[in-house]
Amino acid sequence: MSKIVLSILADNNAGVVSRVAGLFSRRGYNIDSLSAGATEDPAVSRMTVVAHGDNQILEQIGKQLSKLEDVREIKELKADSSVCRELVLVKVHAEEETRQAVIAVADIFRAKIVDVAKDSMIVELTGNQAKLNAFLKLLDDFQILELVRTGVTGLTRGSGDMEEFIDD
Amino acid sequence: MSKIVLSILADNNAGVVSRVAGLFSRRGYNIDSLSAGATEDPAVSRMTVVAHGDNQILEQIGKQLSKLEDVREIKELKADSSVCRELVLVKVHAEEETRQAVIAVADIFRAKIVDVAKDSMIVELTGNQAKLNAFLKLLDDFQILELVRTGVTGLTRGSGDMEEFIDD
Repeated sequence: MSKIVLSILADNNAGVVSRVAGLFSRRGYNIDSLSAGATEDPAVSRMTVVAHGDNQILEQIGKQLSKLEDVREIKELKADSSVCRELVLVKVHAEEETRQAVIAVADIFRAKIVDVAKDSMIVELTGNQAKLNAFLKLLDDFQILELVRTGVTGLTRGSGDMEEFIDD
Repeated sequence: MSKIVLSILADNNAGVVSRVAGLFSRRGYNIDSLSAGATEDPAVSRMTVVAHGDNQILEQIGKQLSKLEDVREIKELKADSSVCRELVLVKVHAEEETRQAVIAVADIFRAKIVDVAKDSMIVELTGNQAKLNAFLKLLDDFQILELVRTGVTGLTRGSGDMEEFIDD
């Protein structure tokens, strides 16, 4: 069992997200997170997929992904040679008495308060998964009403090296 | 023609991302961005999908999404009643002479430098789409080597109201 983070450069066609995600689910593999957005070239989009499971099967999925017509490039983002980040928005219960305590937690993590209402606040944090998890654990004391995570996204470090799925 | 941001709460099953994305592509509709990540409940994931197109067809897709077995809730995130954010990582060409200029642009946007190599830097920025686009336009002068965006994610404001797709 291992965790894999794949960075996939693909033609920006209708259906490419569905096909990529479908390759995992057809093998009964759940995706931990997926994020797909535009790049500097409007014809191309970059997806980051995080999944975990058996090494061999993940490797097979990687090879099958690289055979999809829309897929231009597929790389594995390794922890030591890439920068991986995730964004979380958390709506937390906060009334007059607890608002300061939520702000204090946000300050420790350098999170941003992006909305304040009578009985709730929305806090935004960016970081690696460990940081986000630690933050959410602390906020849990205040009752989390809603939360959304973008899923992990990443790039290889300029100095780092990257392992490619070579289609042999 | 209009742009729509949908927030979808779904059972965290293999295949749900593929099925949701497939509903768009089956009608030839491209997804501008999609992000799917965990929530506070491991059995449930939240997806945010941005698409643009004909109002009527987008409304139909919304209704069909709400009929998918895995989908628990689907809401439209409207600009005036929600907080929408996106994260971008940009690897930009930067050598000794241009490094300070890149840092200056990053400072204006309160972006973070997350990697520095001999001839490149990775800069991280979080914000709404307009902010990200303005930032990327400025960085373009330095030659963008690689970039990845998480796609938009969002929550309704605590004070705001939200329009639901009612399955009538």
